[in-house]
This record gives sequence, C-alpha cells and structure tokens, in this order.
Amino acid sequence: MTNLESHTSNLKYKEAYAVIVAGGSGSRMQSAVPKQFLEICGKPVLMHTINAFYKSTFEPKIILVLNATYHDYWWELCEKHQFDIEHQLIAGGETRFHSVKNAVDIIENEDALIAVHDAVRPLTDIEVINNAYQTAQSNGSAITAVKSRDSIRQMTGITSVALRREDIYLVQTPQTFKAGLLKQAYEQPYSDYFTDDASVVEQAGHTVHLIEGNYTNIKITFPEDIAIAELLLNKKGPQL
Amino acid sequence: MTNLESHTSNLKYKEAYAVIVAGGSGSRMQSAVPKQFLEICGKPVLMHTINAFYKSTFEPKIILVLNATYHDYWWELCEKHQFDIEHQLIAGGETRFHSVKNAVDIIENEDALIAVHDAVRPLTDIEVINNAYQTAQSNGSAITAVKSRDSIRQMTGITSVALRREDIYLVQTPQTFKAGLLKQAYEQPYSDYFTDDASVVEQAGHTVHLIEGNYTNIKITFPEDIAIAELLLNKKGPQL
Repeated sequence: MTNLESHTSNLKYKEAYAVIVAGGSGSRMQSAVPKQFLEICGKPVLMHTINAFYKSTFEPKIILVLNATYHDYWWELCEKHQFDIEHQLIAGGETRFHSVKNAVDIIENEDALIAVHDAVRPLTDIEVINNAYQTAQSNGSAITAVKSRDSIRQMTGITSVALRREDIYLVQTPQTFKAGLLKQAYEQPYSDYFTDDASVVEQAGHTVHLIEGNYTNIKITFPEDIAIAELLLNKKGPQL
Repeated sequence: MTNLESHTSNLKYKEAYAVIVAGGSGSRMQSAVPKQFLEICGKPVLMHTINAFYKSTFEPKIILVLNATYHDYWWELCEKHQFDIEHQLIAGGETRFHSVKNAVDIIENEDALIAVHDAVRPLTDIEVINNAYQTAQSNGSAITAVKSRDSIRQMTGITSVALRREDIYLVQTPQTFKAGLLKQAYEQPYSDYFTDDASVVEQAGHTVHLIEGNYTNIKITFPEDIAIAELLLNKKGPQL
C-alpha cells in the first residue's frame, strides 16, 4: 500500500524541468567572457549550476537557454571539460523574459514542474532545489528567497523611508512553478515590470509562494564574486 | 587666502569620532567567541574595523563600545597582537540603542562629526568612510547603503508583493551625523522600532541622506563570512 501510494504520487508529475537562463555580456565583470563561462574550481560557472540540478532527486530535464552566439563555444567547453550531463541547448531571446519564454514554449506537459534558474547562481543547495519542486508540486509555485540581514530603505522621491526588515525578502532563483501556470503567464505580452518569473506569474493574476533559500546561493555579478563562489564551493566539498 | 579658507574649513569641525559598536553573543556563528573577536588574516575582526577608521583622513577619535564582560579579554587581545591604535573603551548597554547612547553621551562637542559603525564590518573602504564624514559635514547625515542585486519582496499578511528593485537600498554602516543632531535624537526613549541610527534620527524628526557604500562591506554574521572576509581583505592588500 505504501509502495503503491508512493508510486501514484510519483506518477502525478511525470516530468520536472530545470530551465537555466544565461544572459549578460560580462561588462560588469570587467571581462570579455560572459560570467557564466568564467571558471570556478577549474570548471565554468554554468557547469556547476547544471550539476546542482542534475543531483536533484526530481531528476529534472535540463534546458539551457543561451545566446545563439555562444552555442559553439559552449559545446567546445563541454568537450574540453568532458562535461557529459545531458541537457538541451536552445537560443536566448532579447530579454530574460523572452529567453524563459523560449524554453517554456517547448515544454508541452502542463502537469510538469518547471524550475527557472539563473545560470550565474552555481551554489544552490540540493535541499533548496528539492524543496522548490516539492512545494511547487503542492502549492503551484515556490519562489526562493532569504531574509535581509541589513536594514532596508525605500526611496520615495528625494528622500527614503525605512521598511520593516522582517517583512523584506531578497528573491533568488530557482523560481519553480507548475508548467500549466507558467506557460499561461508567459503568454502575456512583455513588460518592463517583469524582473523575474514571480512578477510574470503575479501579473497573470496568481499569488506566489515564498520558500527559504540558502544565503550562499549568490548571483555572480562582480569580479570578487568568482573568488567567493570558489571558496563556498570548496566548503561544500567535491561536486563536479 | 586659500590656506586661510582651508584652515577655517578645518576649524568648522574640530573633531570627528568613530563609535564602533560591538554586540552579539556569537550564537549564530556556532562559536563561543563573539564574532568581533574571531580572527581574519591573523587578527581579530575588531582590529581590522578600528584600523579602517584609523586610516581616515578625518583622523577620528575612536570609541569602542563593548559589553563590560569582555573588557579584560579585549585588552589581553590588544597586548597579544601588539595592537596600538589609540581608542577609548566604554561599556555597552542592553541593546544597540543603549550602547550607542553610552558613546554619544560622552561626546560633548556638538559641532563634531560622529560615525557609528558595526564592529563586525571590517571591510569598509576608506573612500566610503571619508565620504561619510564629508557628506555628514555638509548635509547633517550620511547613511551608507548599496542597491539590492536581487529582486525584493515585502510580506503583506500571508502573501507578498514585489517592490521596485531600483528603489531599494540595503543599509550598512557607517552611519554618520553631526554630533548635535545625533545627541538630540538619542535623548528619545528607546523603541523596538530603532533598528539603526538612521531610524533613531528620523524618529526625532529629521530626514537622512543616503550615500553609496561598498558591496564588500559585509556584516560578519554566518560562519562562512569569516572566510569570505579573509579573502576580500587579502584582495585589498596589507592593512594591519
């Protein structure tokens, strides 16, 4: 009976997807190489990111969205690093919204789960990824976020007001959804207001559910982040 | 004439102070030693913090506010590390507010400038410290802050709303003020609402002025922050 229940439960969502979105020209990194290709612990950032999802017990199918300019370069890197985690490579769009839409459009199963994730966040804990899929399965959405350690101010015209720190969450990725809900949300026309997938889904009339992320799930943005990511990755132990 | 002007300008604020506030029992660090005493690059965090202000061209007088329990221990550490930057040591209070008030109360010169700073932020750039004093001198206050790299959500009851990321600042220290203004603000009775000095000053009816901080000015909170701080400090080059 327990086995059957478990089996039934697994059948409910036959598929999980991880959409890894790479953007960025690398300008803020003072580097000609986009930051997802920079190496940490001897491998490109992107390989660590893909590996984090590969290890999830939800066994997601991985879709990598990358500017078409870099497709050949990426396959060369895969060969050079003998990177053999299976993934589908598709072309990015004009903005992050269009890139995610390209991936969401090729996922047909509306009952699947889709985690959308920044290519430059290689340090997501496996527990966070699993919890994201699990929560999206039961609640429809799971937006990874951490509380702010700092006091927060909001600019209002020329001055600023303090916000209650306990109410403020810094939003990360993965942002995970039932496919049907995400696909519907990405049917909307593009808006500058869309800063992440949660905002797209909300604009479509749904509420989103926050889950606890890990503080070390940093977004590699500035040059010093590469060394910090390397340090944090070494603390996690061998990954790739 | 230029010399005289410069001389007059220097006379306008005869004194600058740095109030370094140490709190914390170290519980979040999984360590019996409060985090301001943990070592980075071979010296306690607190020595790096004091050194950052010592190097400022405003030559602030340094007041260290520390729980009285740790005073003997601190002087032992100073002897052990041959730490000879001059500073005044005073006892902390029940909350951060009371600790800062203890320091503010012993500063008599209302024309002085006071920078209040977290003991566990050892990585403040000298340019930020100098700009803080300079801006407080001309504007009355200077609250160090950085823009958020992440999307931001604010909890509203059981759900959350997205805030415009461009409007949101993560507030750091130093928070620097004209002494008269800060002293007056700290005459107020304590409130739970006071999360930092800016909120105390605002509650007293003043607006505060934000200035750009450095992203690497992290607050040492979690165990991994010690290694990150060490890495960032090494990148800055020899300091102490």
